[in-house]
Order: sequence, then C-alpha cells, then structure tokens
Amino acid sequence: MTEERPIVTPWQVTGRVDYEKLIEQFGTEPITGELLGRIERAAGELHLQLRRGVFFSHRDLGWILDVHERGVKFGLYTGRGPSGPTTIGHMVPWIFTKYLQDKFDAKLYFQLTDDEKSLWPPPGMSLEETRFWTRENALDIVATGFKRGKTLLVADTLCARTLYGMAVEVAKHVTYSTVKAIFGFEDSANIGIIFFPAMQAVPAFLESRLVGKNVPCLIPAAIDQDPYWRMARDIAPKLGFFKPAQIHSKFLPGLLAGGKMSASIPESAIFTTDGEVAAKRKIVNAFTGGRATVEEQRRLGGDPEICPIFQYELFLFEPDDAKLEDTKRRCLGGELLCGEHKEALAGKVAAFLRSHQERREEAKEVLDEFLVKDEYFSK
Amino acid sequence: MTEERPIVTPWQVTGRVDYEKLIEQFGTEPITGELLGRIERAAGELHLQLRRGVFFSHRDLGWILDVHERGVKFGLYTGRGPSGPTTIGHMVPWIFTKYLQDKFDAKLYFQLTDDEKSLWPPPGMSLEETRFWTRENALDIVATGFKRGKTLLVADTLCARTLYGMAVEVAKHVTYSTVKAIFGFEDSANIGIIFFPAMQAVPAFLESRLVGKNVPCLIPAAIDQDPYWRMARDIAPKLGFFKPAQIHSKFLPGLLAGGKMSASIPESAIFTTDGEVAAKRKIVNAFTGGRATVEEQRRLGGDPEICPIFQYELFLFEPDDAKLEDTKRRCLGGELLCGEHKEALAGKVAAFLRSHQERREEAKEVLDEFLVKDEYFSK
Repeated sequence: MTEERPIVTPWQVTGRVDYEKLIEQFGTEPITGELLGRIERAAGELHLQLRRGVFFSHRDLGWILDVHERGVKFGLYTGRGPSGPTTIGHMVPWIFTKYLQDKFDAKLYFQLTDDEKSLWPPPGMSLEETRFWTRENALDIVATGFKRGKTLLVADTLCARTLYGMAVEVAKHVTYSTVKAIFGFEDSANIGIIFFPAMQAVPAFLESRLVGKNVPCLIPAAIDQDPYWRMARDIAPKLGFFKPAQIHSKFLPGLLAGGKMSASIPESAIFTTDGEVAAKRKIVNAFTGGRATVEEQRRLGGDPEICPIFQYELFLFEPDDAKLEDTKRRCLGGELLCGEHKEALAGKVAAFLRSHQERREEAKEVLDEFLVKDEYFSK
Repeated sequence: MTEERPIVTPWQVTGRVDYEKLIEQFGTEPITGELLGRIERAAGELHLQLRRGVFFSHRDLGWILDVHERGVKFGLYTGRGPSGPTTIGHMVPWIFTKYLQDKFDAKLYFQLTDDEKSLWPPPGMSLEETRFWTRENALDIVATGFKRGKTLLVADTLCARTLYGMAVEVAKHVTYSTVKAIFGFEDSANIGIIFFPAMQAVPAFLESRLVGKNVPCLIPAAIDQDPYWRMARDIAPKLGFFKPAQIHSKFLPGLLAGGKMSASIPESAIFTTDGEVAAKRKIVNAFTGGRATVEEQRRLGGDPEICPIFQYELFLFEPDDAKLEDTKRRCLGGELLCGEHKEALAGKVAAFLRSHQERREEAKEVLDEFLVKDEYFSK
C-alpha cells in the first residue's frame, strides 16, 4: 500500500484509511454493539454490511431508532454524482440502502448531482454529459431493486424549480467562510460549486416540505460525504427541520494498489455494464494481499485486510459469515492462493453482473417512474 | 445636497452622482449625437429620455443598431428585484423599454429576482415575501403597456429549472475572486448571493437558447446594474453567445434631500399604488432646488439640476421639450416658485396614477399570460 498520508474529502479518497481516526477527525460516533442490537430487533436481521463493520460510523442513528420505536416513519436520502459509469463500489451503500428501505418500509430520495459534476472538479463535464450519465446511473439505481412508488430519483437540473428555491433558503444561512472551512475551497473556485452544498442539503428536507410536517431523515452514504450533511445539520434547525441522521460506510478498495475504486481508472473498478470477460480480466490482474512467491505465501500467508479480492467478498459477494471466516483463515494460513481466490470471486461477480444486467434492461421500461420531474412536487 | 462621496453599486446609490465620471469609472461609452441620430432614423422618433440624456451611457449600442440595420431582430432584457412596492423611479427604464419594444418590435425578457431579494441585503426577506412582491411588481410591469405574447416575466424561483441549469454553465466560468472584485463581496457573504450573478446573466442568453441560434440582446437598465452584465459579457463568448449590449439610465432623484428614491423610505418616493392625496402630500413635502425665502428665490432663482420636482418633469412628466425649457427658465429666473411648481407636478402625477392604476387593475386578468413558468421553455 502507498505510504502517503490518507486524504478523505468529498472529492478524493487516497491512501490507506484509518477508519477509527476518521471517526475522531470527523467527530462522528462509532456504531456500537448496543446500536447493532437495536437495529437487529427493529429490522429482523442485520445486513452483512452491518455485521462486518462496512457501515461503521453514524450521527444520531439512536434518535432514528427512537422515532422508529415510537411508530414514526423516517425517510432515506442518498446520492450519486453522475460523472461516469456505475462501479460495483458505488453500489455498496445502495445495496445497504435497499435493505433499510425494505426493512423500514421507508421512502427514499436519491439525488443525482448533474450540476455538481459539471462544476467540479475543473474543468467539469458539460451538462449534456452529466445528464447522460444521470440516466445511465439511474438504470443501475433502479436495478438495485428499490421500491416503485417509494423511490424518487431527483436529478438537480431536472428538479431545479423544486430544489433551487429551497437551496436559496439554505444558502441564506451559509457563508463563504463556512464552506471554505468545511470543503477547503480556494478563491479560485467557481461560484457554482461554492453554492452547490446548499443544493446537496435540500433532499434531507424535501419530504418534510412536501408533506408539510417534519419527517426524520437518515442518510446512508460513504463517510467522505459527511461534510455536506454536517453543514445541512447545522442549518436544519434554522429552517425548522430535523437534523438529518447519517450512517457511514467504508470504501470498497480499488482493484489496483491503493485508493478507492474509480470510474476514471477503468482497471481499478468493475463497471456494472462490464461483460464477464472484462470483469474476469480486471479481477485476474488485481492487486492482492498475497506474497511475491507461492513458496513465501504458503509459508507466511496472505493479508486479507489490504486485499481487494477479500474485501469484495466481505463487502458484497460472500453472504455467509462462516464461509467468509473460513476464507480468511485459509488466506492467512497460506492455504488459499490468490489465483484460486480470484477464480472464485470472478464466478460470483459474473453471476451478480448477469442478474444485475437483466434487471438493468428491465429498468429501462420503468425509468421515468423513478426519475421524477418538478411536476411531482408541485402537483 | 450631501457632500458624501457618491457610491454606486448594484445595491446602493447615494450622494450626488457625477454621471460623466461614472462613464469613466465603469468603462462604458457616452451616447453620442451620432448614435442618437441613428436611433432616431431607426425608431422614427427619439424618446424624451434619450433627448434629455436620462439614458446617457451604453456598451455596444452601435452594434445593436448595425444588426438592426441589417434586418436582424434583437431582444430586450431588463429586470426588477421584487422587495417592495413599485415606485415611479422604478418605472423610468420600464417606460423607456416599452418605447424600444414598440419601435423595434422586440421580444422582452423581464427578470424578477425573487431569489436575490431573499438573499441580500442580509437578513433578506422570506421567499414567500419576495414572491408576493413579484406578483405585485409584475402588475406594474404589465400596466406599463408591454406587448402580450412578446413579453416574458421570468421570476427566478418560478423558472428555476430553465434558469438554474444555464446559470451552472455560466458559474463554471466565474470564480469567487471575480465576483469579489466586481461586487465587493466579503467572505461573510452567503453562498446564495455569491452564486446569484450567474442567475442574473442567464436572461441575456435565454432567447438564443430557446430558438437555437444567437439572438443579439440589448439591456436597458439604470447604470448601477452594469457590473452584473459586465460579468455576463465576459462569459458570453465562452458559452458561444453574443455579448449583451447595454443602455444605461441615470437615477430619478428621491423626493427627500440626497440619494435615489427608495421604497424603504416611503416619503422619498411615490408608489404606483399611492392615492392622489398621499402622492400630493409627498410632492408638497419634497426637497427642492428652491431658496430659504421667497424674496431670496425671486432674486437668485432656483436650481432645477438638484430639484426632484424639476427632474420628475424631465424624466417623465413633461413630454414637451419647449415647455420643460420654459419651466427651467422661469425657475432659474426666480419667476416660478416651488409651491406653484409642486402644484403643477402633483396634477400631472395624479393623472398618471389614475390611468396607471386602471391598467394595473386590468393587468390582474392577464398576469399569468405574462408571468411565465418553466413549461414555457420546455414545450
């Protein structure tokens, strides 16, 4: 792994991330055993991403469980910056969000920030491009299996009449000094991206505005997005809304050494539209936690902690905890070699892609039911 | 008059304004006799606000006349910040814009910046309030007599789906440093008002986007708004649009000593909804260019240059140049006393208000034809 100092901002995740330190840095709370117990009682079962600490940090999750226990419904909100094809890494929090939607029968707002991706990082894409990726990514979101009629995909420039007015209300309470401190903007930043945090705050309050009373909101997302909603939380009381609660995931590591997977380095990530051959090639060529030689690996064992192959299983592809534990034991013991492990993962990924791609095709038929327009909010 | 250094920004006009110096400061061009001749030939007649130098400065007006002479249509764009009742001062450029629309058969975009007035100056109004004033001001705009079907009143939060996307395209090319330099923002400014200059640029390009080819645009407005469109002019070529041309007016002085008329100081301005009695009271109590005593005034004469009563006649209420000249001569010669002059103006203002208020009532019937929504642009 790289020795660089890890950087975690909404735009960049590099280096080996110390998640405990991140909890301290960001000022969030770890998900305790007590909280896991409460989720299990409420939901009936714990998602593997909770059992395995993929979702590891939160803000006000206890409050969300309190309101749920009092019989009050909460809403969900997550998002995606549509700047390229969907990777399997993007789907980690989506799959978890689907679990929450299913178990808590929750309405979901899914923001697609076509404006952001046109504004940042410079020079940004054209809006035409980000709108293209909005529809492409939306197919993957729908294919994740979210509920029809309870899931609104909100693309910023398609719902701007609804979002912009509320963003103005948010923006009124946010100074340039504040966004500079939170996001590290410099004066050379464009005025669109400076305003954008106000747009990203809005979906946390949208359901409350729509129904005319306060609805608690839980945001499942990778922890790098926390700064946006920390800002939203500061503003919420000033507008008379509840502070949105959050539950934060770790990053699925990229297939190459170091960093999270990135759509801009095709070999670092498996795209949801990859064919079986391409996906297998990427897995076969992946960085692992293995040793330089077979002999050494038999003797010293591999390191599953830093191995994307193992992490893919842990995050997504091995539902059975006992089997995962066994894989880990065999890796550490030098019994399981990387080639064999890659072969096994490639099979699971191929099966996942086949069924995802089928659902993705079906999603084309219903996309416009999910991808709402302003009219949904003004009726 | 006050001796303070005059300040002219989009938010503030105070002190005695030296308009020649303003042309230098802002880097605009004076309207020459040659240009006036060209306008007269093209329009058939010169509006009194041109004959009398109320519109005195411009950017690229010659180019607009060139394209007109080649038979190409240009569009018009002006605006209003809906933060209170309309004053007669607000109507100065509107009345001139109507002249341009009539003579050049031009389509007009009239922006109502309900977002801006909610954002600035702090603490700003609620959007509910600025939307209320949007409709109130819109009645006065319609009552000015703009053409049905050729006049679009575009309120920012009502047309945000159309405006926000284009504003993002503009914003991409505008850094915080730039708006800081142009508008003097400090880091304590909110991120909404920092983004707002991008929203104000958009209507200059809206017709071009709507029809899918470049349409020249002329912006008639008071000169304090020049910085916004100077910025729009810088960005235009980067987006493939023509730079909007501008024609700038002076400010109708307030009825009290110093400064422009302001809706926030009711006695300084006549509202379009004032009754005859209220309007007359404001005129009778007005500051004038008169002397301390009748005897002194008979001897030394008045000063029409600094007198709002005379300026009201010059800007709006005396269509006959010879009569205006005669009034000036009689004022300067000590023949016309302020009381008599006020009486005469009050009569003209009362007649104007009566007929404006009738048209304002009729405007209620057709308001929604003028005040467009996003649907107009997406059909």
